[in-house]
Amino acid sequence: MTKVIRAGTITTASETYTADILIEGEKIASIGQNLTPPGAEIIDASGKLVLPGGVDPHAHFDLPMAGTVTADDHYTGLKAAAFGGTTTVLDFTSQDSDDLGAVLDAWHAKAAKAAVDIGVHMNITHFTPEVARQIPHLAERGVTSLKVFTAYNGRLRLGDGDIFQVMRIARESGLLTMVHAENGDAIDILIAEALAAGHTSPEWHALTRPAWGAVEAVLRSSALAAQAQAPLYIVHMNAAGEVDQLAYAREHGLPVMGETCPQYLFFTADHLRRPDGAKWVCSPPVRSAEDNARLWQGLADGAIQTIGTDHCSFFFDGARPILYEGQPVAIPGKELGRDDFTKIPNGLPGVGDRLPILWTYGVRAGKLSANQFVALTSTNPAKIFGLYPRKGSLAPGADADLVIWDPEKRITYGVAHAQHRTDYNLYENWELVGYPEKVFLRGELIVDREQWLGRPGIGRFIPGQPFASIL
Amino acid sequence: MTKVIRAGTITTASETYTADILIEGEKIASIGQNLTPPGAEIIDASGKLVLPGGVDPHAHFDLPMAGTVTADDHYTGLKAAAFGGTTTVLDFTSQDSDDLGAVLDAWHAKAAKAAVDIGVHMNITHFTPEVARQIPHLAERGVTSLKVFTAYNGRLRLGDGDIFQVMRIARESGLLTMVHAENGDAIDILIAEALAAGHTSPEWHALTRPAWGAVEAVLRSSALAAQAQAPLYIVHMNAAGEVDQLAYAREHGLPVMGETCPQYLFFTADHLRRPDGAKWVCSPPVRSAEDNARLWQGLADGAIQTIGTDHCSFFFDGARPILYEGQPVAIPGKELGRDDFTKIPNGLPGVGDRLPILWTYGVRAGKLSANQFVALTSTNPAKIFGLYPRKGSLAPGADADLVIWDPEKRITYGVAHAQHRTDYNLYENWELVGYPEKVFLRGELIVDREQWLGRPGIGRFIPGQPFASIL
Amino acid sequence: MTKVIRAGTITTASETYTADILIEGEKIASIGQNLTPPGAEIIDASGKLVLPGGVDPHAHFDLPMAGTVTADDHYTGLKAAAFGGTTTVLDFTSQDSDDLGAVLDAWHAKAAKAAVDIGVHMNITHFTPEVARQIPHLAERGVTSLKVFTAYNGRLRLGDGDIFQVMRIARESGLLTMVHAENGDAIDILIAEALAAGHTSPEWHALTRPAWGAVEAVLRSSALAAQAQAPLYIVHMNAAGEVDQLAYAREHGLPVMGETCPQYLFFTADHLRRPDGAKWVCSPPVRSAEDNARLWQGLADGAIQTIGTDHCSFFFDGARPILYEGQPVAIPGKELGRDDFTKIPNGLPGVGDRLPILWTYGVRAGKLSANQFVALTSTNPAKIFGLYPRKGSLAPGADADLVIWDPEKRITYGVAHAQHRTDYNLYENWELVGYPEKVFLRGELIVDREQWLGRPGIGRFIPGQPFASIL
Amino acid sequence: MTKVIRAGTITTASETYTADILIEGEKIASIGQNLTPPGAEIIDASGKLVLPGGVDPHAHFDLPMAGTVTADDHYTGLKAAAFGGTTTVLDFTSQDSDDLGAVLDAWHAKAAKAAVDIGVHMNITHFTPEVARQIPHLAERGVTSLKVFTAYNGRLRLGDGDIFQVMRIARESGLLTMVHAENGDAIDILIAEALAAGHTSPEWHALTRPAWGAVEAVLRSSALAAQAQAPLYIVHMNAAGEVDQLAYAREHGLPVMGETCPQYLFFTADHLRRPDGAKWVCSPPVRSAEDNARLWQGLADGAIQTIGTDHCSFFFDGARPILYEGQPVAIPGKELGRDDFTKIPNGLPGVGDRLPILWTYGVRAGKLSANQFVALTSTNPAKIFGLYPRKGSLAPGADADLVIWDPEKRITYGVAHAQHRTDYNLYENWELVGYPEKVFLRGELIVDREQWLGRPGIGRFIPGQPFASIL
Repeated sequence: MTKVIRAGTITTASETYTADILIEGEKIASIGQNLTPPGAEIIDASGKLVLPGGVDPHAHFDLPMAGTVTADDHYTGLKAAAFGGTTTVLDFTSQDSDDLGAVLDAWHAKAAKAAVDIGVHMNITHFTPEVARQIPHLAERGVTSLKVFTAYNGRLRLGDGDIFQVMRIARESGLLTMVHAENGDAIDILIAEALAAGHTSPEWHALTRPAWGAVEAVLRSSALAAQAQAPLYIVHMNAAGEVDQLAYAREHGLPVMGETCPQYLFFTADHLRRPDGAKWVCSPPVRSAEDNARLWQGLADGAIQTIGTDHCSFFFDGARPILYEGQPVAIPGKELGRDDFTKIPNGLPGVGDRLPILWTYGVRAGKLSANQFVALTSTNPAKIFGLYPRKGSLAPGADADLVIWDPEKRITYGVAHAQHRTDYNLYENWELVGYPEKVFLRGELIVDREQWLGRPGIGRFIPGQPFASIL
Repeated sequence: MTKVIRAGTITTASETYTADILIEGEKIASIGQNLTPPGAEIIDASGKLVLPGGVDPHAHFDLPMAGTVTADDHYTGLKAAAFGGTTTVLDFTSQDSDDLGAVLDAWHAKAAKAAVDIGVHMNITHFTPEVARQIPHLAERGVTSLKVFTAYNGRLRLGDGDIFQVMRIARESGLLTMVHAENGDAIDILIAEALAAGHTSPEWHALTRPAWGAVEAVLRSSALAAQAQAPLYIVHMNAAGEVDQLAYAREHGLPVMGETCPQYLFFTADHLRRPDGAKWVCSPPVRSAEDNARLWQGLADGAIQTIGTDHCSFFFDGARPILYEGQPVAIPGKELGRDDFTKIPNGLPGVGDRLPILWTYGVRAGKLSANQFVALTSTNPAKIFGLYPRKGSLAPGADADLVIWDPEKRITYGVAHAQHRTDYNLYENWELVGYPEKVFLRGELIVDREQWLGRPGIGRFIPGQPFASIL
Repeated sequence: MTKVIRAGTITTASETYTADILIEGEKIASIGQNLTPPGAEIIDASGKLVLPGGVDPHAHFDLPMAGTVTADDHYTGLKAAAFGGTTTVLDFTSQDSDDLGAVLDAWHAKAAKAAVDIGVHMNITHFTPEVARQIPHLAERGVTSLKVFTAYNGRLRLGDGDIFQVMRIARESGLLTMVHAENGDAIDILIAEALAAGHTSPEWHALTRPAWGAVEAVLRSSALAAQAQAPLYIVHMNAAGEVDQLAYAREHGLPVMGETCPQYLFFTADHLRRPDGAKWVCSPPVRSAEDNARLWQGLADGAIQTIGTDHCSFFFDGARPILYEGQPVAIPGKELGRDDFTKIPNGLPGVGDRLPILWTYGVRAGKLSANQFVALTSTNPAKIFGLYPRKGSLAPGADADLVIWDPEKRITYGVAHAQHRTDYNLYENWELVGYPEKVFLRGELIVDREQWLGRPGIGRFIPGQPFASIL
Repeated sequence: MTKVIRAGTITTASETYTADILIEGEKIASIGQNLTPPGAEIIDASGKLVLPGGVDPHAHFDLPMAGTVTADDHYTGLKAAAFGGTTTVLDFTSQDSDDLGAVLDAWHAKAAKAAVDIGVHMNITHFTPEVARQIPHLAERGVTSLKVFTAYNGRLRLGDGDIFQVMRIARESGLLTMVHAENGDAIDILIAEALAAGHTSPEWHALTRPAWGAVEAVLRSSALAAQAQAPLYIVHMNAAGEVDQLAYAREHGLPVMGETCPQYLFFTADHLRRPDGAKWVCSPPVRSAEDNARLWQGLADGAIQTIGTDHCSFFFDGARPILYEGQPVAIPGKELGRDDFTKIPNGLPGVGDRLPILWTYGVRAGKLSANQFVALTSTNPAKIFGLYPRKGSLAPGADADLVIWDPEKRITYGVAHAQHRTDYNLYENWELVGYPEKVFLRGELIVDREQWLGRPGIGRFIPGQPFASIL
């Protein structure tokens, strides 16, 4: 049970140095020079980096949508996360009833097979006095973040007043409010008109969700947070103007933070115009090269605090089975929207892609330092969502979630490596330099190069601590 | 009927020069050197400025509110406007029914006694398919501007989707959409809580309408305009952040313009804390010295296009009659809210104060040039609201609305000069240098120093032309 | 001598209306409806626009440079200006000695043949106590603007301290300081290195004058102006960052204004890479499409106040004569730098192109209104340089400099139309819609379509009045 | 020689956790849970924080100036640093000759008595081909940062061209260029005029060094860095506009970083107007409350990377001896400028005040997190100046420089605690909560509460590594 990760280059959100890491049971016991406890298993990491396991603040598993369900459940999706170096993922609940405890119970039942550690955000999509009464008790069950929507009228959206109330109850209860920022009213009108005009192709997914709606919703949410004196976290930022407004809010002292996702850094609406454009359909939509660039800049200069994935995987062609763990699997997917872009299940695979893609195209490309990479993909999400210092950290007392990262490993990436249970990958044939070699979850080796050593249920629910402070 | 205004310094939005103005009937016939038509009445303006009559883009008369009615009707209020050098004012309708034609008929009945020329904006506070069908016909009746509200839930507010629809119908019909920008949801919650906590003083009017709500509503409205590809005009800008966001929108090419009012340039929430604080209660509220300064800067550098008044006068003490045209008058007013700030009728006198106050404290103070003064208070409003070149201009063919302005006239200003039918003035005892000497409406001398030469009904309805282009 | 321009659409910096203009002698006598003085010559302008003659704030004639001289002198260049609708041009002196009076005498001798009216800026390139003593007397000779350089070390540049002193003396004397903003130090080093490395092509002209040097020089000059409490005018703005910094300075209340030129709106460094790239060599260099776009935006939103040309024409191939007024003319030109970009005479033709090009590609393209066009190219330069209201205005008492502009005239533009005395035009084969039809200088018709009715010396020196106020 | 710091709350630039630190000799050997090596000395830190020793990037010792010398030499000043929790300080050389090696030799002779570890920046105040030849060899002697000045003409200033050249040589040689950013030209003129006008009081120190000169110099230096493609570090930022321009540069991808100092966060020019105003005379001067606020904001949102002190202490009254280590000491000081502000020695004590003052008024005041505090005052300076991971870090292998910080310790601060060898302290009578309890330098306890356990020469020269990357 005692292991020593020897002589790796330990890389945290602020530090880079070479040392040994002593793991005892599930925890990091110490970090030091020449640690040689008798009987310890020695894992040589010389010439490699040792990173805290990734913390993905934003993913969805086993989520019914659009007449089907996400391709990945809590086992397959989180196993893919592990292959990509991520050892903690935050999922979302659907508020299927106003009994939030029952909602959580149902979620736990589904999440029991988790392949890495997991936390959960509570969606608040129906705000009643009863719900208001229950929110302060969520922290007792380890849920310290709520998500609200300014889009999806009649389904997920709350009005501004309800959002304002949620923010204030959240603040009082040590919870962080997260917001999906788009203007649902304009979107619904544009969609109805597009369909009426016979516009059915995936490109219309983007055309009916204009960036300006996202931009104003960022400022609107931030302004509500200012008035509520409550912390706010903006999920999946995707437009240049959102970065402008987030920076404006922060420079004016508002308690706001932001997240972006790899898809918004690399892809544009042009991808939606491809024959297989449905693969890129997610909400909010991918936008323009100028948006990509501004988001990168926002990461580099500190305007944006985290990178999540919004993993929400579907098959591109759900009629054609793939082999997954030796079994044929086929789940209805993007083809459902062949004749109607609104019927395309919204979402992308990505939970496993995040770290390898960002390493090569962010760190090696000189856009981010290795420390920023760790901060954005692990430490900051852990801090923001109350998992720190247990997660997101390489420090004595922390969970021994860590990745031995081979900075010189070269692979041609794609669906074969990605391990998601779906039939495509957005980064197919991208050349990568730098890749996870070994992944440990609470001290246990669960990925060894291409080999999966974990099992369903090895992942554990990690309760969130109350929100501490704005990063 | 032929008059010559001799040798005044003619001051327009861009020009300053000395010449004679020949008036024939209601129109300016020509402007030139040494105009000496036989039989003309000669009015010497040497040493004086000649300005186009002011155009106030924003005022309210004979408006029922809070269990009373505004102190000024279309005669008394517009007469006060005349004394202040303003010869055209734009009023608003209340959408009392979905028959917009009937709404206009009722408005015309009330406005028939107008003391200067008048136009009208149509409030859209209830958006139905029937209303949507009628809007395109408004231009036929000379109404080419609509106002919508993002506040006053359940009374005046439209949802974002309705606003978006209104903007698009307006654009198609040659109309301009105006927006009252605040966040109604947060306001309603804050007001309810304030009252529940026993906070009843006028200061709470400001505390329950935070600036951030106005700031986001400016960007939200601008974003809707961007998506609707429709022009937008933001009324009564009052907060520094609103100027930031208007500038941001315009620098990003959005079709947006903005208006501020004198009260937002000179007063702060400190005034609400005075014993007579109710005098300063208007919506949105007066804010801070920093907001004042940013608004001045926005006027100087061109971010803001117009200065209106939002004149909406009430008595401070409606129980104590005043003498008005020799008659005692008393109308319930601000005292209605003595025990509850929400019951204070919202609004201020100002239609007559605008030009004199801005001249001394804007132009003479070096914050605005005389040309900017004319542009902001006359030419730009006339252009934006389709009254140009008939109004807002000193040019042949234009209505002979003009002011002979004595730049050296010194008075100690206040309720006695202001001529509004109310018992107080916000600028009581302010020292002014520069004041209207003679005011002509379509060629007719209606104010001669302190003497009123006009009469009820001399003012005429001026139909607006379709919206032309963003300034 | 009495003329009436009948029924044109008079277009000024702020007004647009239809009227007649009565010209008596050199002046506009009046503007009015149906002006019919007996014996007047009637010029029909119905369906046409009538604009104030253009005022070009920035041009160079008969200027020795790089071993040759500009292709245009004060007759040929200003005649071309007239064909393009410009009736007043501001030239620059070279400070060939410290006797500024003698410098002016020499300039007047050369400018005596001017084909339109002319003013002059005094370059201060050698600042001594004697020069400091003379500057306050310049206004007596009608010179109220000084230009200083932050580049061209050892030739034209003044140090920051001298610039600061010049600004303060200028302010005290009612003069406006203008600045050519680049970082001369970095440029000189980069040029020496480029030549040492054998880089001789025109592209290196841009590569050795980086935009960041211009950007900082704008803020540096503005900061000196702030400390000197003196007005400043930045010539030929060319980079996006310059607009950012000008806007920053103005939003912080600094007394700064800016000018750009058509070449910076339409061309990029790519043009320098063409085989005939030398045609586009001017200083500062043309830059990028992003810079073009930001400059347009700065014009539209009011950050930039004027558009000049920096006309400074050379032959492209000075060895091949052209026919000019029937005579073969050949003047050494751009070919001097065939083997060394530093030997290319710096400058472009443009004084005649400005209005036609900006009309089609600015006003008709929807980037500027016709009023903005007049403000930027006529009224604002006239105001800034003390020529207003004599120039830049269509008002009684003003010089009768005006253009009857045919908004529907279509031509394929180029060297044949442009009338500059050189062998190329930057806008060769550009399609134009809208063109001057008749041009009047102080009441005299000098251009009638393609016909030149003027003569050498018809242009007059117009003394500048003291600087009045920041626009 | 083996020590264990037991159970402290270890606080680094990104992490906060509780663990033991094992020190072996001069180094941190390991950090872990329950470290109990036999024979180790146990120092209990439970309930306390353990911070990496402070790294002050900017101080001056034993520096002749204005006819006197700084009050602190490398022993007294660095001892005071130690009392304040700072264990590494970067001093500056004066370039007294063009033999940079000799300059360094002289510096080492003076610095040999250092009381904590020390590094050194090389001032380049005379740039010749010989100096250019020597700069690349500085790294061999552990000097990897150069400072240049845009002020102090004729003494310290380099021209822009020389700065550009220095930046490029620096970049090639792995060195970082630092800049003192003011406009020396304007300053010299203003000073001469102030003196000529008889303005001699300390206030004129600020009035003759206007903020706009500093603001433009930030952008100018950044622009030169952009053109040189070289990293830049702006010392002692003091004005709001400097933060704006640093943020602008960084958002545009320029390789620039910035430092501020406590005096610019807490004091304004009002302090110079006090009878003892000379105490606050430093260059650049303290400015306004608005500048203070913008600098705080820049620290909070990441625009600024470090906080140094620019410690450069003088006596306020050098005629009155103080007791220092039991001996009377009197060194001519601020009184030298009693009749002439230019003769006031420029500089303030502060090297020891930095951490305690910033803790109470930054961290406890909620303006900075404890992690930001460590980053700004220790880790970032160490990284930027090539001392990391040896300094600025609590990690195995790092020097065991650490502070046990008592977060609840309350003292009334002032000259008695500060330990600088001078007769005043800027923070006299400020109430502090949180203070260093024990300070270790390379494993050795040198400060134990109020007791000094170090000695002259215990400090060691720490060679800087080549500059790595922009933070």
